[in-house]
Formats: sequence, C-alpha cells, structure tokens
Amino acid sequence: MGVRIVSAAPLLTPTELLARLRQIGEERYHHRHPFHLLMHEGRLTRAQLQAWALNRFCYQSVIPIKDSIILSRSRDPEFRRAWRKRIVDHDGEPGRPGGIEKWLKLAEATGLERTAVERGEGVLPATRYAVDAYLRWVSERSFLEAVASSLTELFSGSLIALRVDALRKHYPWLAGGLDYFQARLTQAPEDAEFALAWVARHAGTPELQELACGALRAKCDILWAQLDALYFAYVQPGWPPPGAFRPREQA
Amino acid sequence: MGVRIVSAAPLLTPTELLARLRQIGEERYHHRHPFHLLMHEGRLTRAQLQAWALNRFCYQSVIPIKDSIILSRSRDPEFRRAWRKRIVDHDGEPGRPGGIEKWLKLAEATGLERTAVERGEGVLPATRYAVDAYLRWVSERSFLEAVASSLTELFSGSLIALRVDALRKHYPWLAGGLDYFQARLTQAPEDAEFALAWVARHAGTPELQELACGALRAKCDILWAQLDALYFAYVQPGWPPPGAFRPREQA
Repeated sequence: MGVRIVSAAPLLTPTELLARLRQIGEERYHHRHPFHLLMHEGRLTRAQLQAWALNRFCYQSVIPIKDSIILSRSRDPEFRRAWRKRIVDHDGEPGRPGGIEKWLKLAEATGLERTAVERGEGVLPATRYAVDAYLRWVSERSFLEAVASSLTELFSGSLIALRVDALRKHYPWLAGGLDYFQARLTQAPEDAEFALAWVARHAGTPELQELACGALRAKCDILWAQLDALYFAYVQPGWPPPGAFRPREQA
Repeated sequence: MGVRIVSAAPLLTPTELLARLRQIGEERYHHRHPFHLLMHEGRLTRAQLQAWALNRFCYQSVIPIKDSIILSRSRDPEFRRAWRKRIVDHDGEPGRPGGIEKWLKLAEATGLERTAVERGEGVLPATRYAVDAYLRWVSERSFLEAVASSLTELFSGSLIALRVDALRKHYPWLAGGLDYFQARLTQAPEDAEFALAWVARHAGTPELQELACGALRAKCDILWAQLDALYFAYVQPGWPPPGAFRPREQA
C-alpha cells in the first residue's frame, strides 16, 4: 500500500555543487549560532570567553589527529602531500608555532592557565562527545565523506575576519591572543580550495554528491552542538554540569 | 597441580634495553634471511629481483599510511612534529622525490613497468597479509607497541650499506635505481634514534619493556614472512601461486 516516490536527483555541475554546499553553510554553519552572535556583539563576559576558549581547545587539539586519520586512509601520495600541510599548520614547526600553540595563547589571554587547558580540565562532556563524533566520522565513513567534512572551511574565512574585528573591538584585553585567527585567514581558504576541488572531482554521481553534502551537514552539526552546550552551560540557563569549568567569579 | 613460576623480570637500564633490542635484531632481523643472503652474494636472477622489488613495493607504499596511523594515535604535538618527518621522507615534497617514488625507480631499473608495480599486479597474497598485519599492529596494539615496532630501523642502516655495495657489484644494471637506499642510509638512523629514545623513556616498567621487545619481534616476523613467501615462490621450490607475478622468461 502506498507508493514510494524516489526523485532521481540530477548530477550537479561543479558550480552547482559549490552553490549547494554554500547554501548548506548559509543555513547550518555556526556563524549563525546565538553564542557567536553574542560574542561578535561584545556581549560575552570574560568568563564566558574562557569557557569558549577552554572547550574549543578540546576541538582544536584533535585537528591534527583528525587529519592524520584522513592521511592514513589515503593511498595516493599526491593527496597525502597536499593534506599533510594541515598537520603542519596545527602542530607547527621549529620557529613557527602552530594552531594548537596559538590557541593556548588565546586561552591564556582570557586568563586561563595553560596547563589546565592542555589537560582539558572542566571541558563539557557534550564538547567531548561532539569531538569524538568528528573523529569517528573521519575514521568510519567513506573516504569521500571524511574529506568532505572539512568543507566547513569554505565558510570559516569570513567568520574569522568578522570575529577578529569584533574581538579586537569589544574585548581589547584579548588582543594579544589573536594570532590563531590571523593564520587561519590564509590557511583555511587554501585548504578549502583543495578539498573542494577534490570532492568535486571524486563525487561523480548524484549519490556521491549527496554523501558529500551530508558530510558537510554532519560537520556543521558537530560545530553547532559545541556552541549549544556552551550556551546552555554558561549563558542561558547557565547551568554548567557537575565537574565542568566554573568561572572564578561564580566559584 | 603444578606450580607456575613467574620470574620477576628486572627493569633494564636504557643501555641494557638497547642491548636486548640489538640481540633480538641479531637473531630475528631479515638481514639473516636466505633470500637476502642470495641477493648479497649476487646469486639472484633479474626475475627474482623483479619479484622482490614488486612485492616489497607493496610494503613501501603503506609506510606513510602506517606512520599516519601512529600520528593519529598521538596526543602529543611534539611527538607528532618529530614523527611526521617519516611521512615526508616517503611521500616526498616538491622537487624532492620520496621513498615511494624512489622505490618505483628501483622497480623500473629491474625492468618492471611502473604502473603495474603501482597497481600491485601479481603481488603475493602472503606479502599482502604481512603488510596488513603491520597496519593492524600499529592500529590495534598499545601506542608503545606501535612505536616500538619501528625499531627495526636500528638495524636497517648496516643492512642497507651492505646491500648497496652488493647490488652495485653483482647487479650493475641496477645501479640507476639505488637512490632509495642512499636516502635511507641517513633517514633510518635518525628515525631509529628518536624512536629508541622515546621507547626507552616510555617503557618504564619491566612489563612495558617486554611489550616493546615483543613489538620488535613482531615487526621482525612481518619482514621475515615477506622474504619466506618470496623464497618459496621464486627460489625454492619456486612455486608462485595462481595469479602471482611470473617472470617473462618463464611465461
């Protein structure tokens, strides 16, 4: 009983695929999240920025792990040569601190202690779950979906440009900790360009294109969930769960 | 019934641990394998060297994958910065071909076709099983055991030095394909030094030291099994299994 209609999706051109990905980003990327809106309007307290820096470090610190997993799944030396740049960007090299080190500087600029951040003391369980979901995604999904999940970088450039201005303006005491974002302004678009070209080339059927779009949605979910948890714990209702970071002024 | 005697192994000093590892290498590293002895005495045919180059490429080509898995398992940016050098060494960088490319040149120098080698046509199933066992080892064992399995590099320097001389002397037609070994003469000892220091530092109990020694033995097994399979298929009795590479002169 009942007829199941399966609409045959057409194969998108690279331009159409990019438009579709951009539309997903417009609707789902975390530039729209209320926590970020508060941040960019200068309405977060120092304690809330501390909670953000601490929790986001949990995410930042596994980026090279995520990228090493992707590296370990590629049988193509050319792909690996391009992708490993990401690991260098985050882990750094002699004389050039990487993204992880820079994020620690940002956390210190909020007034947190570096070693506590490194140990992840007080990170929200929901942050960990989202980060673990990301690692599982790149480990367990198809290689196309693993690569496509990085496509949020298509949108990070403009978010970061906006953020750097807003942070400088509203939280001048944070100015010494913004190197991370400066570096990402050039790194993220380069990475996104490579990943987009690779995905466009390897998603050669409507089904594969849909998998790529699904991966981008899944990654947007992972980013969004982290901010939901932050908002609930530290903005409204403002209920950090047992064991989670508590700003000193409330302690 | 019966008494189980568990001898309490003492904690070895770093020097004693190194001596123990060297002893394992002396007994089990594949410099002792009859296939290598024939090679170094100049007693292999070109066809046998082809079979070796083809099968060994299967192993070479997954080295960056193995190292990316190890990278993905480390939570320490400093460790990752040191370890990722291995990936660069094998995948190369612009203007500097890596180990994989150089092994392909060696395979070409034996008279094989590059694309057939890249596709792994005719590789012995036993080679694949051993290579897969290596990837599983670094994925599934403790991180210490994953790292310690690389300690065969302690012994590769002297094997390669011997081999380069022997190959030049006995197989002069191969001389154009020896770049791989030249590079490894410096890379392998550097890598081994780092891994040894790391293992010595992190194997802080007799049990952990035994795990590290076990990992080295397991890796020796993996290398040895590949040569056993080559010997059986291409030397004596000389029975390549169905689907495996067959030298043209026998075809």
